[in-house]
Amino acid sequence: MFPKNTWYVACTSDEIDEKPLSRTICNQTIVFYRSANKRIHALEDFCPHRGAPLSLGFVRGDELVCGYHGLAMGGDGATVEMPGQRVKGFPCIRAYPVVERFGFIWIWPGEASLADEAAIPVLEWADDPNWAYGGGLYHIQCDYRLMIDNLMDLTHETYVHASSIGQPEIEEAAPKTSVDGQEVITSRHMENISAPPFWRAALRGNNLADDVPVDRWQVCRFTPPSHVMIEVGVAHAGYGGYDAPQERKASSIVVDFITPETETSIWYFWGMARNFKPDDEALTDEIRRGQGQIFEEDLEMLESQQRNLSNNPERQLLKLNIDGGGVRARKIIDKILAEESS
Amino acid sequence: MFPKNTWYVACTSDEIDEKPLSRTICNQTIVFYRSANKRIHALEDFCPHRGAPLSLGFVRGDELVCGYHGLAMGGDGATVEMPGQRVKGFPCIRAYPVVERFGFIWIWPGEASLADEAAIPVLEWADDPNWAYGGGLYHIQCDYRLMIDNLMDLTHETYVHASSIGQPEIEEAAPKTSVDGQEVITSRHMENISAPPFWRAALRGNNLADDVPVDRWQVCRFTPPSHVMIEVGVAHAGYGGYDAPQERKASSIVVDFITPETETSIWYFWGMARNFKPDDEALTDEIRRGQGQIFEEDLEMLESQQRNLSNNPERQLLKLNIDGGGVRARKIIDKILAEESS
Amino acid sequence: MFPKNTWYVACTSDEIDEKPLSRTICNQTIVFYRSANKRIHALEDFCPHRGAPLSLGFVRGDELVCGYHGLAMGGDGATVEMPGQRVKGFPCIRAYPVVERFGFIWIWPGEASLADEAAIPVLEWADDPNWAYGGGLYHIQCDYRLMIDNLMDLTHETYVHASSIGQPEIEEAAPKTSVDGQEVITSRHMENISAPPFWRAALRGNNLADDVPVDRWQVCRFTPPSHVMIEVGVAHAGYGGYDAPQERKASSIVVDFITPETETSIWYFWGMARNFKPDDEALTDEIRRGQGQIFEEDLEMLESQQRNLSNNPERQLLKLNIDGGGVRARKIIDKILAEESS
Repeated sequence: MFPKNTWYVACTSDEIDEKPLSRTICNQTIVFYRSANKRIHALEDFCPHRGAPLSLGFVRGDELVCGYHGLAMGGDGATVEMPGQRVKGFPCIRAYPVVERFGFIWIWPGEASLADEAAIPVLEWADDPNWAYGGGLYHIQCDYRLMIDNLMDLTHETYVHASSIGQPEIEEAAPKTSVDGQEVITSRHMENISAPPFWRAALRGNNLADDVPVDRWQVCRFTPPSHVMIEVGVAHAGYGGYDAPQERKASSIVVDFITPETETSIWYFWGMARNFKPDDEALTDEIRRGQGQIFEEDLEMLESQQRNLSNNPERQLLKLNIDGGGVRARKIIDKILAEESS
Repeated sequence: MFPKNTWYVACTSDEIDEKPLSRTICNQTIVFYRSANKRIHALEDFCPHRGAPLSLGFVRGDELVCGYHGLAMGGDGATVEMPGQRVKGFPCIRAYPVVERFGFIWIWPGEASLADEAAIPVLEWADDPNWAYGGGLYHIQCDYRLMIDNLMDLTHETYVHASSIGQPEIEEAAPKTSVDGQEVITSRHMENISAPPFWRAALRGNNLADDVPVDRWQVCRFTPPSHVMIEVGVAHAGYGGYDAPQERKASSIVVDFITPETETSIWYFWGMARNFKPDDEALTDEIRRGQGQIFEEDLEMLESQQRNLSNNPERQLLKLNIDGGGVRARKIIDKILAEESS
Repeated sequence: MFPKNTWYVACTSDEIDEKPLSRTICNQTIVFYRSANKRIHALEDFCPHRGAPLSLGFVRGDELVCGYHGLAMGGDGATVEMPGQRVKGFPCIRAYPVVERFGFIWIWPGEASLADEAAIPVLEWADDPNWAYGGGLYHIQCDYRLMIDNLMDLTHETYVHASSIGQPEIEEAAPKTSVDGQEVITSRHMENISAPPFWRAALRGNNLADDVPVDRWQVCRFTPPSHVMIEVGVAHAGYGGYDAPQERKASSIVVDFITPETETSIWYFWGMARNFKPDDEALTDEIRRGQGQIFEEDLEMLESQQRNLSNNPERQLLKLNIDGGGVRARKIIDKILAEESS
């Protein structure tokens, strides 16, 4: 159960070079390829001739050529040519609306006529030279909503990420959740605390003292279908926290695009956008490595939580105040699902 | 189909240190932990907050703390506390009767109010300084009753364990099976034979000549739900066999606790208790290694037998005289199952 | 869905030495063994005593002895003896008609009374000293008919085997398909082309120039249930192609026996018979290695094609002229299936 008339991140731009890429999204196996003019196409990964996966073929000009018997498929899902054959009557395969933007390939797995490029979320930092981005991809065996819950309730940092970004003060600061249209915002502010290891390193990266009390914040923003952007940061205590001047704080945006593969598996695109030292590629790599290790700690928890829930489908879970962000995000998703099925 | 109102071995005492242990028993996923006062607790491995496995958490005092959001669970299945939450209304999870005794953790997977500690089998050798015990655990993909059959018909030693404890004389000596209440006893006595390799080593371990004729015996005792204790030994021939004086024989008890994991998989706790050289730990290790190798030979046979039976559910198997022990054990199990379901 | 009253290749002669071999064929798990008199027997791999696989046992004289409790099974499926037991009343297990011929073990998985040894295909090259044969076995997860399609439409060589035997001229030469009784023949002739790498090597192996234009041919012959013999070769151009004299050509027979394991998996016996340098075993090995590499290229394609078809059972595939051989072969198979089920 996932919204279909919406944009999901299918892959990053650098995942597709001259070779096609097969990826299952919302239960549909799709082949992505970049044609000679660099445009991205997304097609059903199914040759209309004998059902071979087109992703085992190769790109020739604007076409994707099947690696079995040479049928050449156009980006619109219509066969262009095949050696020794008249192809006019060949059945079309499905072509998906697809857009390359902000370093990601966005796919619309639902009704193509409804696809609206303007609905792709705007990532201000993506094309801004004052910002840098680094990220990665994890393939996780869980319902996409478990990952939304995870990201909208950062209380878990205290336990799952105790050695990097967790600290007892997180669970002591009650989160506030609000809804603005289709956006759910859960925020938490901690004052006059000591910074955990990850943030001490970020302070140093900003040439700021790392051994003084800080104010810390987490502002999680969910938008459908399953994007979660989290503003996170610390400022030297007493300068306004979230609103402190740039030279007193270290902050960034945790970027999370969660794309359902099946009902119980996801492609999880995670990353961090920062507006300090944007040209320092070594720093980008270091942050990516650190963030990758932290986010890997969630994998076992989420996958075993999924197994527990699959084995106990009748169990009701608790919805506490800390779960408010996830609960409200699920309400918005449920409403979209109801609209799509009506 | 397994009895539930009964005690099974869940694990050995040394499998649980400061970390919790998750193990599925009779289709129920259970977390075991040892609290600060060393007492063992067994709970459903399911956090009432969001369904995460409690086994990924940690022990704090008498409580098991969930590793996801810090819910602290008591050994009785009631939530004790959770950061920032009132927990009085939290639903309980299931707590299982559990007892640590004789070096094993015993679990009662059925109706808790019926649990009776006095029903735990008494292992006289376990607390007796004149005895030593060594054993191990195998995880096997077969119905627990196939292992009972295996242990109640030692004819298979001739074939499966030809190089260690098997010898043609076993199958030449007809076994006798009798039933005493809920106990099934199958015994076999061989006279004036030559000892196989395992027993020649045991004779040497008892400072007895290993190159003379011996009398050999096997007395298999099944008790429900699925425990099989086997008295085995050899004596220099002509001194009374099973009843020979201690200084003329080498004997021991093969210990088998078979705990169903699912309908077609088991936790098989095997071991050997001996009343000679009880302080010789090197000998304990040597016997354990030898027994482990021998019992490993049964694994492939039992797992492929299970696959064959699963693929041919309509086939009737033979019930020969050598199968008498297993057949009678299954009758007792069937009676218990009928009582439990009535 | 596969014909059952027919001969399949179960294994090669050299796969069975003194140990029995278990292999599933047409969904039936069968044990093959060679008795003391070298005769091959094929039995249900299921001991009538307790259901253990007989393939875990050993051969003693003409019998297969179960490795669990020593039941001795005859090649006719009747128990011969068992230690301490009267076996007259033991139920029989199924014995399959089986013949060793031409270096292969042939099995008849259907109604035994219908088995006719004369129906085993005659492999003229197998016992002819002027011919040599080398081959191998692949276990592939696909419907056996996908492999028939593959072999009856060699257009795929241009794409799947581009670096060895593929060349654009293949798809430019339209194939001709004809039916002769139960045989389907698809042939393709290419004139005055340059030889691809595999055939250049074969020309050199025949002491022929490899840098001159050649005529090339492929004559695929399907016979039920799923055998495909392909005459392939090249001759120096202008000497008659397929009909050129022996000293102007290099030719051989590609041998393909496809045995269904399940509905979606096969045992694929592939090989090449040649009538040049038959005593050159190093050449046999070299050809086997080369052919093995080429045929391995089909595996990923066929297995992913199968996954695609399994995931899209409602899709209709195209039946083009190049598919004519496979389409007609399937018609013959369908007719046999209809007869067998009537």
